[in-house]
Amino acid sequence: MKTHTDYLWFNTEKRQEFIRITDKVAQVVEESGVEEGMVLVSAMHITAAVYVNDAENGLIEDIQDWVEKLAPTYGVYGREGKEYRHHQTGEDNGDAHLKRLLLGHQVILPITKGKLDLGPWEQVYYAEFDGKRRKRVVVKVMGMQSIDDEMEDLDMYQNKDNLQKKLQESLDSGLSDLII
Amino acid sequence: MKTHTDYLWFNTEKRQEFIRITDKVAQVVEESGVEEGMVLVSAMHITAAVYVNDAENGLIEDIQDWVEKLAPTYGVYGREGKEYRHHQTGEDNGDAHLKRLLLGHQVILPITKGKLDLGPWEQVYYAEFDGKRRKRVVVKVMGMQSIDDEMEDLDMYQNKDNLQKKLQESLDSGLSDLII
Amino acid sequence: MKTHTDYLWFNTEKRQEFIRITDKVAQVVEESGVEEGMVLVSAMHITAAVYVNDAENGLIEDIQDWVEKLAPTYGVYGREGKEYRHHQTGEDNGDAHLKRLLLGHQVILPITKGKLDLGPWEQVYYAEFDGKRRKRVVVKVMGMQSIDDEMEDLDMYQNKDNLQKKLQESLDSGLSDLII
Repeated sequence: MKTHTDYLWFNTEKRQEFIRITDKVAQVVEESGVEEGMVLVSAMHITAAVYVNDAENGLIEDIQDWVEKLAPTYGVYGREGKEYRHHQTGEDNGDAHLKRLLLGHQVILPITKGKLDLGPWEQVYYAEFDGKRRKRVVVKVMGMQSIDDEMEDLDMYQNKDNLQKKLQESLDSGLSDLII
Repeated sequence: MKTHTDYLWFNTEKRQEFIRITDKVAQVVEESGVEEGMVLVSAMHITAAVYVNDAENGLIEDIQDWVEKLAPTYGVYGREGKEYRHHQTGEDNGDAHLKRLLLGHQVILPITKGKLDLGPWEQVYYAEFDGKRRKRVVVKVMGMQSIDDEMEDLDMYQNKDNLQKKLQESLDSGLSDLII
Repeated sequence: MKTHTDYLWFNTEKRQEFIRITDKVAQVVEESGVEEGMVLVSAMHITAAVYVNDAENGLIEDIQDWVEKLAPTYGVYGREGKEYRHHQTGEDNGDAHLKRLLLGHQVILPITKGKLDLGPWEQVYYAEFDGKRRKRVVVKVMGMQSIDDEMEDLDMYQNKDNLQKKLQESLDSGLSDLII
């Protein structure tokens, strides 16, 4: 069994931006060496979403119109109603919190035979609703390595020095990449 | 540890259809032999949803009315607004993409003592919004087998020929069912 | 590898109540001994939600206004439309089912170096929409223990009596806490 953790950083130019991240997630999965398992992709800031849908520009604009209609910028009922209570704190991003709730902030992707097991049109998107600053998405892989790699790890248990060395390498790498 | 992957196929008669799939998911879990873990149930086509709620026909119709109100067929603002941009590609299913986003496209169910660990009224549904064609749901189980099965697998590591044979059987079965 | 399962119970005084549960989830994770993995937090009753967002009281009221606007108490179109079909069964909580669908009923939190791996403002909330009765949230942890604990477990496999004893303790504890 193996887990592997990495973080994707974003700092968008515009306040709202939708970014396709399928390839970046696939790269983390490849680096993990996990053959069978799952990967969690989760926005760590509460005004951004992660969702799976089509890489079609018209649809992406439709989605942006849709979340604006259902979670308007000024307040729950738009300009005809009162402003978000959250703005009394000095924030101006009440809508961004609701948009994240509407689209969801995380997905789990299955990993089968070492690859993301996605349907033909499934693409992973990071949806930023309050950008222009550094924000993170955690990508956490969990599952089984190839038979050979699992056997190598099991052999290692017989040799505590090897295990200690590998663990130290993992810690030194700066990523929480633990192999057991 | 074990993972087990299967796919449920759907080809609905109507464009929109809601189908209870709890029993099918439970069957995949039983086949997996996993005693403690999780199962991911995820729609692989981007105009279908998977959700957990009540198996009450009135409520199901309420849900269908609700998603139609919030994600109307013609466009974000219904017939009073412009048509979905996505329809400029020749597609007519912009609403189905949004309905999937509203209900969510996946759930994770806990497996405890070999069974789906669901509340008394929790039922898993496949919600098709653009049917009449073959579409898939991936069901991926991950977790631990019974103590006896885990010990049997560990014994197997001592015998590389057995392991090779079991792996080959797994590959030959057509399902990516890997035991480590 | 280890899994650990626990349940949080709620019995709210008011019909609708939002409760921050981050610390309770963190406590279950600590009890599990899992160092690297994931924890599923899932509402087992179909009129409650679990979501991750800000612990700011104004925003919480904004969220409550928002779900009431999008999933009104009386019916899909509010008092101007017909009542929920679900109410013909004698229930009065059609809106609570939809509110759960809107906010989502579960989250997966990553566990890194033994702690919940959350962003600076991420807080886990239980959102009750039909309370005043006992309801549950399942918290299921899955992942790897520390190297030392994993090695101890592996040593145990060499001694079937120890394993049997530990399994029995686990079963006797009333929690489905299985160590393999």
